[in-house]
Amino acid sequence: MRVQSRKKVVVKDILFGGDRILTCIPLVSKNKKKLIEEAKEVSLLRPDVIEWRVDFFESVNDVKSVIDTLLTLSDIIGKIPLIFTLRHWKEGGKSNLHQVKRIEIIKKSLETNCIDLLDIEIDNDMGFIDEIKGIIDKKETKLIFSYHNFEETPGEEFLYNKILEGQRLGADIVKIAVMSQNYGDVLRLLNITYWARNTIDIPLITVSMGKLGVVTRLIGGLFGSDMTYAVGKEASAPGQIAIEDINIVLNILNRSGF
Amino acid sequence: MRVQSRKKVVVKDILFGGDRILTCIPLVSKNKKKLIEEAKEVSLLRPDVIEWRVDFFESVNDVKSVIDTLLTLSDIIGKIPLIFTLRHWKEGGKSNLHQVKRIEIIKKSLETNCIDLLDIEIDNDMGFIDEIKGIIDKKETKLIFSYHNFEETPGEEFLYNKILEGQRLGADIVKIAVMSQNYGDVLRLLNITYWARNTIDIPLITVSMGKLGVVTRLIGGLFGSDMTYAVGKEASAPGQIAIEDINIVLNILNRSGF
Repeated sequence: MRVQSRKKVVVKDILFGGDRILTCIPLVSKNKKKLIEEAKEVSLLRPDVIEWRVDFFESVNDVKSVIDTLLTLSDIIGKIPLIFTLRHWKEGGKSNLHQVKRIEIIKKSLETNCIDLLDIEIDNDMGFIDEIKGIIDKKETKLIFSYHNFEETPGEEFLYNKILEGQRLGADIVKIAVMSQNYGDVLRLLNITYWARNTIDIPLITVSMGKLGVVTRLIGGLFGSDMTYAVGKEASAPGQIAIEDINIVLNILNRSGF
Repeated sequence: MRVQSRKKVVVKDILFGGDRILTCIPLVSKNKKKLIEEAKEVSLLRPDVIEWRVDFFESVNDVKSVIDTLLTLSDIIGKIPLIFTLRHWKEGGKSNLHQVKRIEIIKKSLETNCIDLLDIEIDNDMGFIDEIKGIIDKKETKLIFSYHNFEETPGEEFLYNKILEGQRLGADIVKIAVMSQNYGDVLRLLNITYWARNTIDIPLITVSMGKLGVVTRLIGGLFGSDMTYAVGKEASAPGQIAIEDINIVLNILNRSGF
């Protein structure tokens, strides 16, 4: 069996850090109508978790429109936990919003109580993080602190310290997504995942992006990554593959009794 | 793409050390009649290579019977390359034969010219190895030098030196199969595979045995293992899984353009 995390996170009926490797599908449509279709289709694929990539939404600047769409999506996906992600443009996000606007959108969205998990970047400035934490503290919402690097896979110490930083900032879950340029990078990501799983208490999500990193989306869970992102309608990051393929591989590993 | 080996080995139409990760199914039946059935079934599964585990053969002591069966198996599998393996009992073999007898069986079997690859253990004494090499030198047969440990995964230096030793002894291909007790062992095997692939010229076969090691049978090829052993009728080592499962995973990785 894979090593569980010492601290678990439970969101609705989903356990992060347990025996089971979770799947998540991101919603990436640009408008409400298409998001509704996408959410319906994706729900049928039965991922454990659904993420709304709000930065892909063309009316992201219009808080009322975000709230309205969030409420509708929440109705559609029902019992599946929802991650709300307004990805920073410096880490692969599609919208370049001012920090004041980002805080406003997140704050108002949290007030709907429809957000089960909020993903924010570790590298945000402390003012932003403190403000978000101030709101989150009064909510059931869990915090994912994330780090993305679309250029390369940094060294082991850097990545390990980034995970520690996320934990220190108060993350319920830490996520690391880095680009691989060779299979040594892919192995480094797996090594850091295993090292972190055995020394850090909270659940982890790690992924090596790009073609070479696809393997980490399939088997990273064995070494300590608690969730893998899969394509529903369209990829939100390089290297994402279909949830069917991920389920097939997880089933093969399950049957062999990993 | 995975890193190819600098030296390639070609056996019949099969290329070791190229882009493609090869599959091998071992024949493990105890008598000629069952071996004939097994060889027919296994051929239909279209592995790249077939291995006859001669130590499973109940008449292994009877050289005439071995030769007779070898000729028949060779006819059945036709163009599929054949590995002849009389595994030493100290490394998981089923027959405890005297060295003189082992040499006699291998020598007479090589004379049939039906053996494409011969697998012998790195840890055999030098007298044995020199005698085998003396015969092989006049043949087209390629030599796999192997190391098995059914207890544990030794340290990185030990394993790396074992691979070097195999190469130094004149291996065309080196094989390492070690038992994993935790996912750290599994990662160590993958790390050593990648290290060896980038520093050693010849093709490699590496595998982490047992339940936890199943993942290496699926994805070890990405990090430098050139062949994976799969179950046809029955497993010859702990953790072996069906060739169908391996092909499914290799296809998923291929489609994603690894």
